[in-house]
Amino acid sequence: MSIRIGILGYGNLGRGVESAIAHNEDMELVGVFTRRNPENVKVRTAGVKVLEASELEHMQDQIDVLVLCGGSATDLPAQTPKYAADYNVVDSFDTHARIPEHFADVDAAAKKGGKIGIISCGWDPGMFSLNRLYANCILPEGQDYTFWGKGVSQGHSDAVRRIEGVKDARQYTIPVPEALDAVRSGKNPELTTRQKHTRECFVVAKEGADLAKIEEEIKTMPNYFADYDTTVHFISEEEMKRDHSGLPHGGCVIRTGVTGMDNEHKHVIEYNLKLDSNPEFTGSVIVAYARAAYRMSKEGMSGCKTVFDIAPAYLSSRSAEDLRAHLL
Amino acid sequence: MSIRIGILGYGNLGRGVESAIAHNEDMELVGVFTRRNPENVKVRTAGVKVLEASELEHMQDQIDVLVLCGGSATDLPAQTPKYAADYNVVDSFDTHARIPEHFADVDAAAKKGGKIGIISCGWDPGMFSLNRLYANCILPEGQDYTFWGKGVSQGHSDAVRRIEGVKDARQYTIPVPEALDAVRSGKNPELTTRQKHTRECFVVAKEGADLAKIEEEIKTMPNYFADYDTTVHFISEEEMKRDHSGLPHGGCVIRTGVTGMDNEHKHVIEYNLKLDSNPEFTGSVIVAYARAAYRMSKEGMSGCKTVFDIAPAYLSSRSAEDLRAHLL
Repeated sequence: MSIRIGILGYGNLGRGVESAIAHNEDMELVGVFTRRNPENVKVRTAGVKVLEASELEHMQDQIDVLVLCGGSATDLPAQTPKYAADYNVVDSFDTHARIPEHFADVDAAAKKGGKIGIISCGWDPGMFSLNRLYANCILPEGQDYTFWGKGVSQGHSDAVRRIEGVKDARQYTIPVPEALDAVRSGKNPELTTRQKHTRECFVVAKEGADLAKIEEEIKTMPNYFADYDTTVHFISEEEMKRDHSGLPHGGCVIRTGVTGMDNEHKHVIEYNLKLDSNPEFTGSVIVAYARAAYRMSKEGMSGCKTVFDIAPAYLSSRSAEDLRAHLL
Repeated sequence: MSIRIGILGYGNLGRGVESAIAHNEDMELVGVFTRRNPENVKVRTAGVKVLEASELEHMQDQIDVLVLCGGSATDLPAQTPKYAADYNVVDSFDTHARIPEHFADVDAAAKKGGKIGIISCGWDPGMFSLNRLYANCILPEGQDYTFWGKGVSQGHSDAVRRIEGVKDARQYTIPVPEALDAVRSGKNPELTTRQKHTRECFVVAKEGADLAKIEEEIKTMPNYFADYDTTVHFISEEEMKRDHSGLPHGGCVIRTGVTGMDNEHKHVIEYNLKLDSNPEFTGSVIVAYARAAYRMSKEGMSGCKTVFDIAPAYLSSRSAEDLRAHLL
């Protein structure tokens, strides 16, 4: 019998989860739930219904795991605890500073409902977190580095779009090659924000807009750009559509550390992702953890879990014997 | 209170485990156990006793986890089940084909004794296996690649040493850069053994030995060299000591795969290790899993486990709250 998945929220991530389900033979998409008018939402999986979110009030028997694809700012802090009382859920909550609070809320609800709630699932937080943890445990004396990109940052693109005179914008985060080389060589450099990443913006300006003013506003924007070397390119709408319609991303987590009775040996552990589609990859991680939620729930577990709490074998549809014989 | 570790077998790996214990503040080395005469074994940790292996018959109260540092060919198949009946144990059993059988033997003994037995721990099997598993679960449609090196293969070095006229030898396994590039670019190449790795041998010949014959014997040796492009260098004993006394190693696990309703997006996941000391890094992984064995045992679990069965948080000395707040 398939694992029956529901998706709440059908933006980029919801579509990424839908595509991931299509790649996993033991899973089935039961329905896409939306707060919009379902008639205006068109999904890509044949035969799958789009339903109002309110339908989730009485579909507990039809869904094994509900994947929550809302935003971390306002959607998930309310949605994940709410639905964890009735469903096994997985979210991709990524406001690092608020994770402890979110965990507590989801844990209380999930325990009360006897369900599993997996939070902060994706690649960062998610696979990058896992690799930070494993590498820290193996090399207790060392240094962590995380680089993002080259890839589109949606938050930064949105920030540029909010500037007066900007019609559309896309922002790429790019690791500085010299910084990456220095880290990989084991030199343990101390790197400032500016030394680690550069930012590149492609902007479609409205007719008659003051380009110099837009560029200045981008480059001096606090938090988002002021601490970085930023390049701004003004392009046409056609160029934007032709060259920048994808959502590629990636990056790497590197830990360098020492072993030996006199710290005489250096080691470099690197986990590296190159992703053509950020939301589809994130959706693929989430779906693997949805399988884990289903299996842990079947075994009678409940409460909030993160990638740290879940034995890797739970992510796989293959038996423990098969995994040991072929992947160990 | 510290986690009290015993080491059985004091070769390269035993010394690597000893060094790893010194880097973990919550651990303490109780003793090194040997089948040799303890008087002939000198350990590097101040105050630590070297004892005969037979002493393990009555030290159950003094050791929380026993790390088994013997070889996979004959030592571990007997030792790990034997000691798993009385101790939480960790080994680095690496004969891939015999893992199912070894698992069954250790599982039966550990369950009977109410202990945890972790097998096949290190980097391959170990961290490489974990990364194969995670990447397979995230990208079910894709292809796996494992490259080893550049690094010293002890098995291949030993094979060269057994050739008549050879006094000493060191063999390096080297990934072919073009193959690595093709894999990383997402081209999904089909690669033969010869296309993936080359082998480089440094040989000290005995006086008067027939160098051409040694080189020919190496290059045509079945299983070890015949399927590879191999280079042989004859060097002096001084050069061997000066340039080849380390045991560096490393390599990478790469999975490339597709997502999207039409498989339109490619992704590359890479886990990469560059190690100055193979035995010390392996020892560091083993010691992190020794902590997991201790904690799982404290929680009342028993039986044989592999890296697939162990939730990552068990490897860390930090609390779940701390991990969520700082590493997620």
